[in-house]
This record gives sequence, structure tokens and C-alpha cells, in this order.
Amino acid sequence: MSIHIEKPSLLLHAGRAKKNIHRMAEKARRQGIRFRPHFKTHQSAVIGDWFREAGVYSITVSSVDMAQYFARHGWNDITIAFPVNLRQIAEINELARTIHLGILVESIETVNFLCTQMTASAEVWIEIDEGSHRSGVAWEQPEAVLMLIQALQSSSLLRVRGILAHAGRIYRAGSPDEIRRIYSETVDRMNSVRQFLAGQGLSVEVSIGDTPGCTLSTDLGLVDEIRPGNFVFYDAMQLNLGVCELQDIAAVVACPVVARYPERNEVVVYGGAVHLSKDTVNMNGQNWYSLVVTVSEDQEADALPDWLTLVNGGYAARLTQEHGVVTLPGPDFKRLKVGDLLYLIPAHVCLTVSALGEYITTDGHPIRTMNNQ
Amino acid sequence: MSIHIEKPSLLLHAGRAKKNIHRMAEKARRQGIRFRPHFKTHQSAVIGDWFREAGVYSITVSSVDMAQYFARHGWNDITIAFPVNLRQIAEINELARTIHLGILVESIETVNFLCTQMTASAEVWIEIDEGSHRSGVAWEQPEAVLMLIQALQSSSLLRVRGILAHAGRIYRAGSPDEIRRIYSETVDRMNSVRQFLAGQGLSVEVSIGDTPGCTLSTDLGLVDEIRPGNFVFYDAMQLNLGVCELQDIAAVVACPVVARYPERNEVVVYGGAVHLSKDTVNMNGQNWYSLVVTVSEDQEADALPDWLTLVNGGYAARLTQEHGVVTLPGPDFKRLKVGDLLYLIPAHVCLTVSALGEYITTDGHPIRTMNNQ
Repeated sequence: MSIHIEKPSLLLHAGRAKKNIHRMAEKARRQGIRFRPHFKTHQSAVIGDWFREAGVYSITVSSVDMAQYFARHGWNDITIAFPVNLRQIAEINELARTIHLGILVESIETVNFLCTQMTASAEVWIEIDEGSHRSGVAWEQPEAVLMLIQALQSSSLLRVRGILAHAGRIYRAGSPDEIRRIYSETVDRMNSVRQFLAGQGLSVEVSIGDTPGCTLSTDLGLVDEIRPGNFVFYDAMQLNLGVCELQDIAAVVACPVVARYPERNEVVVYGGAVHLSKDTVNMNGQNWYSLVVTVSEDQEADALPDWLTLVNGGYAARLTQEHGVVTLPGPDFKRLKVGDLLYLIPAHVCLTVSALGEYITTDGHPIRTMNNQ
Repeated sequence: MSIHIEKPSLLLHAGRAKKNIHRMAEKARRQGIRFRPHFKTHQSAVIGDWFREAGVYSITVSSVDMAQYFARHGWNDITIAFPVNLRQIAEINELARTIHLGILVESIETVNFLCTQMTASAEVWIEIDEGSHRSGVAWEQPEAVLMLIQALQSSSLLRVRGILAHAGRIYRAGSPDEIRRIYSETVDRMNSVRQFLAGQGLSVEVSIGDTPGCTLSTDLGLVDEIRPGNFVFYDAMQLNLGVCELQDIAAVVACPVVARYPERNEVVVYGGAVHLSKDTVNMNGQNWYSLVVTVSEDQEADALPDWLTLVNGGYAARLTQEHGVVTLPGPDFKRLKVGDLLYLIPAHVCLTVSALGEYITTDGHPIRTMNNQ
């Protein structure tokens, strides 16, 4: 089917996304590990249903609003993998009353607050900083984790479920081998905390799991739960890390070409920072905002081709609010006319989804996200 | 008035924004130059009305959608300062039928398309590349501009109004003096094109104008129109360039603190890439996502303080989707508790406005943008 695209649009290949979902769900199932995918990547009830079809009933989100959205769409086992925002305690209590809610804590201040302010039952995960230094209790300080767990025991509504981490530092890895090494090291660090707690008579679950580690590690290790999110679509960053192949990419942004400059092999597209986000992928020592795929001769079809071809040397070099300046090698440049579409693999698809708020499937159906209800 | 803030929120000081608007409007008026402010910064009908109160009736926008939004809100003299997107010709014709529309062209392909496809009258600006190499006809090639104008003369609906440029390179300036020099150079380059055309018997207007140049240049020079946008709020990038003072900043983002780390003087706030955008300001050789203001003792007031104090050494060092990792010097760090609000001046306010889609004025009124109707 041919779709008429007027503006920067996120094209979604449903078949590929479903294949990505089933592959990860199956991997977790075979290893007896709970699969609690992170829905911050797709932010859509329709795509959530594709996970249900793959036997997924537990999910992760990154905000209270996202939990509310998915709860409204029938999800009743949700972990908010973000340190509790005390200012949203009313909404958190409302969620705790209606669904099976997991929340994340990492300080005694937050624990003390929750012990007095929670009015419904919730499960608590202690966030561990496994070495990325964003948030969480340092993994080297298991006694601090113990202290939080002991403080939580004063509450009859809060039940400690386990320890949880996100190994963000894995995105700085230089190779697939290094990704596997960091994943395995994270499993070990989490289990060292678990063993310390076991020595104190406490049994806890371990939840980890980013897309690079969960995709590339054959053995997911001694964990109870994985929470990858990006793998549903993958993106230029994952491709650059060697995490996925081109045929795994399930979402690209189609941008109308509005100007072309033969003297510098650059085209300007309608597609800028407010569409793609300003996140970058570092390749060959340069920061690029996206990679170009399939500048094919059947541009007028306006559909995501079944097979994407990466245009070597094609990338968005500069972005302003609505403009994207895209560098293209000679032959691909020559084929492209003003008014054609250029297809871009976003550097970081989660942010692009959040910005665009809507997908168009390759058979022409719109799918909205929570940002565009 | 006290406002209860739960989530990352864009606080707007209406008094400062109005002062910024009146100052720029008055400067243009005194010099006999048309003021056609760029509305891509605020994207709001309510704030648009503040410009009307300052005698502004002509505006600039960066997309067809934005033109439609402001046309619905009573604006009838709008220039879309973005190269015509051929795929939106139906919407462009509809706008041309209903308002006084200005459009931007820079290639013969687009001109030929418009000459056959326009069904209502519009004014045309030829976009000039004044040296920034984003889009436009190179200013050194006035004969190419002439060719476009001649081609446009075949249309009875399209009237050439003038030549237009955006000196984006001004943002790479190292000092206020360099900004004034680039502004003045841009005026000269545009007038060299104008003079060439005058030699061919063609009279055209000149439209330029970015916030740094229009704010810092006392004499706006031989131009017919200026189109700055950012000045309505200013931001960390403008502050860093020496374009504005702290007391000119009219919009800051209030972010709840969710975690604090004394060992690294960092707090984690609810406020990440999807709120602030990943645009940066380069200070001291480092890229920062925002600057911290007023970590004051009356945090519980939840209102934008009338006087912002910049916290030296306070900045958002890292952003992920929902997390902001903010570095703070010792004394300010010590005053801040989990649950408090931290106020951030965004690196690039236009992108932050686009992401958040709503303001809260310091007297507690919500103002929505076109992204959140």
C-alpha cells in the first residue's frame, strides 16, 4: 500500500517489531527469567498489545504518567523504574490501589516518606548503582541496601521485592565483547549484593537488563527479571554498537527533502531537533543525528521498503529546530529530488518516538503514543 | 501565589517576557524597521496576544502547521521561514486563500512547482545563504537569485517581496563584538545582493534578524524587517553568548529532586531529554544541558523567584530520557532535599517549549502551546 507522507513521519514495520518482541520474550522464557519489557521506548497501547500476544503481562515504565496510561489500557503489573517522585504521591497511591505496582527507592529520605505516606500496598525495588553513577545505592555498599530494607519493614503496605539496576555505562562499550563483559559484570555485582543480604536472612530478586546486554549475551545469568526496551525497534546507536543488524531496525523517520546543494553533497530535509531529538551516535569520531537508508528509485512508493539499505556516508550532520542537514555520497545525492522522501534511522529511537507521538505502519495505519491521545 | 508543581514544569515570568517583547518592538519601531517576530520560540496563542499588545501584526513561523495554528488564532500576516515543503502544497494553498502568506524559496525546482501548483496569491521571499550553509542561495551568487525572480514572474499569483536570511553562524561567535560584526556583515551581504538586483531594475526588501544580532546591535542597519524569536524568553545559550542578563531570562524549568549524592555533589532530578531536549550550551569547554538558578531556602513557595540567582558551578551534566544529573557546589547541594524543586535555565528554550507544550505563569495560570491543544 502506498502512504501519502507530508511531514516528518515515523514509519513502523510491524512485522519486524513483532519479530524483535518474540525473539526477546522467547529468550527470557527459555532461561526461566521473567520478561518485564520497558515500555518507555514505544509508549503505545497498540504496540503493548503485541507484547501481550507474546505472553508478556509485566511491564516497566519510566514515569507515573506512563504507568497511568498503561494501567488505563489494561496492564496491571507495572514497575515504575525511576526513583519515586515524592510530589506525585497521590497518583502513586491511586495506582497502588488499582494495580500491582512496583516502585523504586534508593534513599532513606524517600523510604521514610513512603512509610508514612503510602495508603495502599506496593512492591519496592531498591535501586542499585552498578557503576553507571546515575542513580541508586552503590553496589559496593550492600549495608546501605540492608538499612533501607530494614527501614521498609516498618511499613505493612510496602513489600521489598528485590534489587534493580540499569547498566547505562554499557552504551559506552567499544565492542560486542565489551557489552557482554559489562552485562556479566553487572550480573555479578547484583549477585554480590544479593549474597550479602542472604547472609542477613533476606531473600531478594534481581532485576537488570538493557537492550545491548540482553540482545548479545547468550546466557542471561543468575537474574530473576530483565527489562530491555529499545530492542522493539532498535536504532542507529544499537546498530553502531553491533547490537543489531540492519534488518532488525523496525522504525525509520521519513523526511521530505526541501533543498539540495550539489556543491556540498548535502540536502536539507523537513525533520529537525523537534522530530528526531538532538541525541547523537558517535561514528568515526563524529556525532551524527541519524543514518540514511534506502535512497531508492521507487521513492514515490512512500512505503518503508522491506529491505533497508544503509547509505554509506549518509548521515544527518546538523539539526536545528525544524531543519535537518543531511550529507549524502554522490550517486545517492544525484538520485534525490526536492519533494522526495529521505529515510533516516534515528540515533536514539526512544526520544524520536516521544517527540513525534505517532507511527504510521507500512500498511498505512496510524498508531498513536501516550503523548498524542 | 504558591503553585503546586508535581512534574517538570516550564515556569514563565510574564512580566519579563512582556518587557523583552516591548523592548525589541520599540527598537525596531524607532529605526523604522518592520518587526516580524519568530513565533517558533513560544508557539502559543496567548503569548502571541502579548505581541499584539505591543503593536505587532506580522509574524514568522517555521512550519505550515504553525502557520495554520496562528491563522486560527487571528493572525493574518504570516511568513513561513522554511523552504517550501512541496508535499504540503494543499495546506499552503489553503493558507494563501485565507491570510496574507509569505513563503520561502531557494531553488528553481521549487519555483517551477509553485508556478504551476499555486491556486491563491502569496508573497515570495528568496532565501539567501549568508554564510551559514544551512539553506538558501549563496549570497555570492546574486545572478542565481535573479534567475529565480525571473522564473517567478511567469506566475500571476506569486509576488516577489524580497530576500531573507537567518545568520545561524552567529551562534558560533566568541564575544558580543563578534556577534555585532557578524550581524553587520550579514546586513552588508544582503545589501550586496539587493544592489545587484537594483542594477537589474528589481526592487526587493531585506529580511534578517536573529536574537543575538538584534539584541546587541544598536543600529539594525539597512534592512526592512527583523525576525528574532528567542528574545521573548532568552536562555542559557544567549546568557553564555553575552546577549542577555540573568534578569532577562523569562522561562525556567522547575524539576523535582528525586535523589542526591553527597560523594559527588550531584542530584538527580525528574527532568530529562524529553523535557529539556538534548541541546547544549558549551561553557568552559564542556557541554551542559542547562544552568541552575536559585537554590533558595524558600523552595516550598514553588514560584519563580522575582530575582534569579545563578548558582556558579551548577549545571545539568548528563541527561537521559527522564533523568537529569545535576552538579551543584557544596553549599547549594547541602540545602537541597529530595522532594525539593530545582530550577534550570534550559540550554535552548525553543526546544524545551516544544517538548513541554505548556507553561505555568508565576501567578499560577497554565498557558498551552500548539503542541498541547
